[in-house]
Amino acid sequence: MVARMDLLSAAPLGIAEDLADLARDLFATLREADHDGVGITRETYAEGETRAMRRIEAIARDAGLHCAWDAAGNLRVTLAGNDASLPAAACGSHLDSVPQGGNFDGAAGVIAGLLALLHAARGARLPRTLHLFVLRGEESAWYGRPYLGSSALFGMFDPAWLDLPNLRDPTLTLGTAMAREGAEVAPIAARTPLLDPASLSQFVELHIEQAPVLVARRVPVGLVSGIRGNHRHPNARALGEAAHSGAVPRWLRRDAVLGAADFAMRLDATWRTLLERGEDLVMTFGIFTTDPREHAMTRVPGEARFSLEWRSESQATLDAFGELARVEAAEIARERRVRIELGPGVRTPPAAMDPRLLAHARGICTRAGLPHEVLASGAGHDAAIFANAGVPAAMVFVRNEHGSHNPREAMDFGDFLHGAAVLRELLLTGDEALR
Amino acid sequence: MVARMDLLSAAPLGIAEDLADLARDLFATLREADHDGVGITRETYAEGETRAMRRIEAIARDAGLHCAWDAAGNLRVTLAGNDASLPAAACGSHLDSVPQGGNFDGAAGVIAGLLALLHAARGARLPRTLHLFVLRGEESAWYGRPYLGSSALFGMFDPAWLDLPNLRDPTLTLGTAMAREGAEVAPIAARTPLLDPASLSQFVELHIEQAPVLVARRVPVGLVSGIRGNHRHPNARALGEAAHSGAVPRWLRRDAVLGAADFAMRLDATWRTLLERGEDLVMTFGIFTTDPREHAMTRVPGEARFSLEWRSESQATLDAFGELARVEAAEIARERRVRIELGPGVRTPPAAMDPRLLAHARGICTRAGLPHEVLASGAGHDAAIFANAGVPAAMVFVRNEHGSHNPREAMDFGDFLHGAAVLRELLLTGDEALR
Repeated sequence: MVARMDLLSAAPLGIAEDLADLARDLFATLREADHDGVGITRETYAEGETRAMRRIEAIARDAGLHCAWDAAGNLRVTLAGNDASLPAAACGSHLDSVPQGGNFDGAAGVIAGLLALLHAARGARLPRTLHLFVLRGEESAWYGRPYLGSSALFGMFDPAWLDLPNLRDPTLTLGTAMAREGAEVAPIAARTPLLDPASLSQFVELHIEQAPVLVARRVPVGLVSGIRGNHRHPNARALGEAAHSGAVPRWLRRDAVLGAADFAMRLDATWRTLLERGEDLVMTFGIFTTDPREHAMTRVPGEARFSLEWRSESQATLDAFGELARVEAAEIARERRVRIELGPGVRTPPAAMDPRLLAHARGICTRAGLPHEVLASGAGHDAAIFANAGVPAAMVFVRNEHGSHNPREAMDFGDFLHGAAVLRELLLTGDEALR
Repeated sequence: MVARMDLLSAAPLGIAEDLADLARDLFATLREADHDGVGITRETYAEGETRAMRRIEAIARDAGLHCAWDAAGNLRVTLAGNDASLPAAACGSHLDSVPQGGNFDGAAGVIAGLLALLHAARGARLPRTLHLFVLRGEESAWYGRPYLGSSALFGMFDPAWLDLPNLRDPTLTLGTAMAREGAEVAPIAARTPLLDPASLSQFVELHIEQAPVLVARRVPVGLVSGIRGNHRHPNARALGEAAHSGAVPRWLRRDAVLGAADFAMRLDATWRTLLERGEDLVMTFGIFTTDPREHAMTRVPGEARFSLEWRSESQATLDAFGELARVEAAEIARERRVRIELGPGVRTPPAAMDPRLLAHARGICTRAGLPHEVLASGAGHDAAIFANAGVPAAMVFVRNEHGSHNPREAMDFGDFLHGAAVLRELLLTGDEALR
C-alpha cells in the first residue's frame, strides 16, 4: 500500500511520453484505415474490425504480451501475474463503429487498456494477471443487436442472433460473417460460456462521453455511477375524438394532441421532481405525430401517436416512473376524456457499477488533483455485460464534444491521457478497494 | 305592432301541415337525386346543383313567386311587397354539398327560406319585399374557395378564381363550369356588384349546427351571436436540438416536443382563462409531428412541426390570443431554449351578427316557449358575406348530430320545423328590431 502510494506520487497520473506517442499514432492509423470519406466505418465481424484488432495484437506481441482469440473472435491480451490463483483484473472495449461514425467510440477504450498493460509490463511483475479484452460487435448498427462479443463471453449470446441479416447486406447473416472472421460458431450456438466471471476481479472500461455533460461542466474525466436501464414504449397513443376545429367548443372536445401534450408536461414535471430528490432519470418523447392520413389544420385531432422512453440507473426509479406515468394517464382520461395507451413495452435492466471501485476512482482523481464528475451512462456499454455477469465493473468517461456515432466526435488528446491514466490506476489498484 | 303580435299568437311558431309535407318531400327528393351510394354529392356549378335549384324554382313559380337568375347563376325567389321604396328582407343558403356529404348542410336553409316565402304568400300582401337567395358554391370542396355565389353578389368574387381548377377534375376551370351552368362570366370578372347591400334590410339564414353543442345542451334551436374569424399558422415549428436520449441530462436538453407540448399547454390554459372571462375562442393544434426522416425513440427530438389555428367572434380576442401566444413562446425560449416559430399566418376576420336581430330572435323563441341557446358559429356561412357587406344578418342553427360534411348528419325533422318557424318570424318581423 505504501509502495503503491509511492508509485502514484512518483508518477501522478502521467502517461509515459512514448506510450502517448503510440496512442496518438494508433488513433491516426485507425482513422486512416477506416475513414470512408465522411466518417469512420468499421463493420463488426468484417475486414476492418479484424484488421484493427490485429494492429492491437501486433503491438501487444511486440511488447511481449500474450494474445489469444476466443471462439467469438474476441482478442484477449494478457500480462501474466505471479499468482495464478488470483482472479485477473481486466479492462477492454470494442473497435467496431457505426457507419460514418467517429474515431473514438470504442477505440479510445481499447487504446487506453493497451497503454495500461504496456505500462504495467515495464514495471515489476504484479501478483495479479491483467487482461485487455478487445471485444467484437458492440454497436447494434450492423445486425441490430449490440454487445455480441461480450455477450458470447458469458454464454449470453442468443443462438438466434446467428441468423440475423446484416442490415447493410441482408444476404449476409451474422453467423456467416463470424465464421468468415475466424469465430467458431458451434460453442457460441451452444451458449458455452467462454469465460468464468469468477476468474475476473474487476472489469474497467474507458469510453468517450456520449453526452455534453463533461463539456458543460468543464471537467476532463467522468466516473460512471451506473449504466442506465430503460423502459421503452415505441407505439404509445393518445385517443380522443376528431371534431370540427371551428365549431366544437372546448368543453365538448376530446383533443388527442392536447391530451398527449398534457401527458408530456405532467411527466416532465414528475421528472423534475425526481431529479430534485436526487434520482437518476432521463425521459424522451422521441416520436410524436398526428396521423398524416387524416390530420388537418381545421380538424381537432382524434389520435396522436408517440414513443416514450425513460432511463435510470435505478430499477426502483424505472418502476416508480412507470407507475407515475399510469397515474397521470388516468388523470388525463378523467379530465380530458383522452385515453393514453402506452402499448407494449420493452425493459432493459440497469447495470450497477461497483460502488467500491467508483469510490476508489474518485480517490485516484482527488489525490492527483484531477477535476472529475460522477455521472450515469445513458448509453449501454460492454461493461454492463460484465457487471450483469457478476464482475465488479467501473467506467471512466472522457470529455467529448458533439456526442458519438457521428464523424464530429471531438476528444481532446490531453483529456484522453488523463482518462487513460485513471483507467490504468484503476486497473492496477482497484483490488485495494475490492478486498 | 298589435296586429303583428296577434299574428304571432294566432300561429305560435307553427308550420302549416302542407308546407311541412312539402319540406319533407323536398328533403327526400334532393337526397334521392344526389345520393352517390355513400352520401350526398352535389357539385357546385354542375348538373346536380342546377337541377336542385330548378326544383326550388318550380315550386316557387307554382306558388306565384317571382324567380330570377343572376350573372353568377344564383337563383333569387321574390315575393313583392307593397312599398317598393323599402329595402327587402332576405333569407337564403346554398344547395351544393361536399363530396359524400349530408343532406342538410345548405339545403335546410334553402327549404326553410322557401317555406317562409310560401307562408307569407298566403297572407295579406306585406309592405316589404321578401327574397330567398339560393346561392351557388358555398363549399370550398370543389374549387378550393367557398362563398362563390354570395361573394359575386357584392363584387367580392376575385376574377382569379375563374381560373381555379376543379379539385376533382383539374381539366375544368371554375369559369368554364360557371358558363356551362348559365352564368355570365364577364360581369363577374369585372367585379360588377350584382346587388346593392342597401337594397336589403336584413339577411337571415338557417343552417344545421356543425358542432354537438345543441345536442349536448338538449336544445333544438341555436341563435348565432357571430361567425368566428380565425388566425391560422399552418407551418409552425418548435426548434431545439437533437441529442442522445439516454445520455443527455435534462438541464442540457433542448427538446422540441417538450417545447411544443409546453406551448400547447400554456395556450390551453390561456384559452380556459379567456373562456372564464366570457370571451369566445376555440384553439386547435390539428397537425403535430416530429420529422419522420430523423425522429427515433432514442433521440431527443430537435424539431417538431405543428399547425395552430384559433377562432373567435371577436377580432379583439383573435388579436389578444396571438399576442399571448407570442408571450408564451418567448417564455419557452427562455426556459427551455426551444424556439417556437409560428411562421406565416392567414387571417380571416369574424363576421358580427346584428345584435338587434339576435335579441329579436331570442324574443321570438322566448315568447313561443322554445328552448334555445345563443352560440357562435365556428364555421363560415354565406351570412358572413352579407354581414361583411353591411347587411344586418342573423342565423338560426338547428340541432344536428354527428357534425356536417359527412353522410351521418342527423337533423330531427321536428327540430327543423322549429328552426324554420323562427327563421320565418325573423324574416317577417326582423324590421321591428332594426327600426
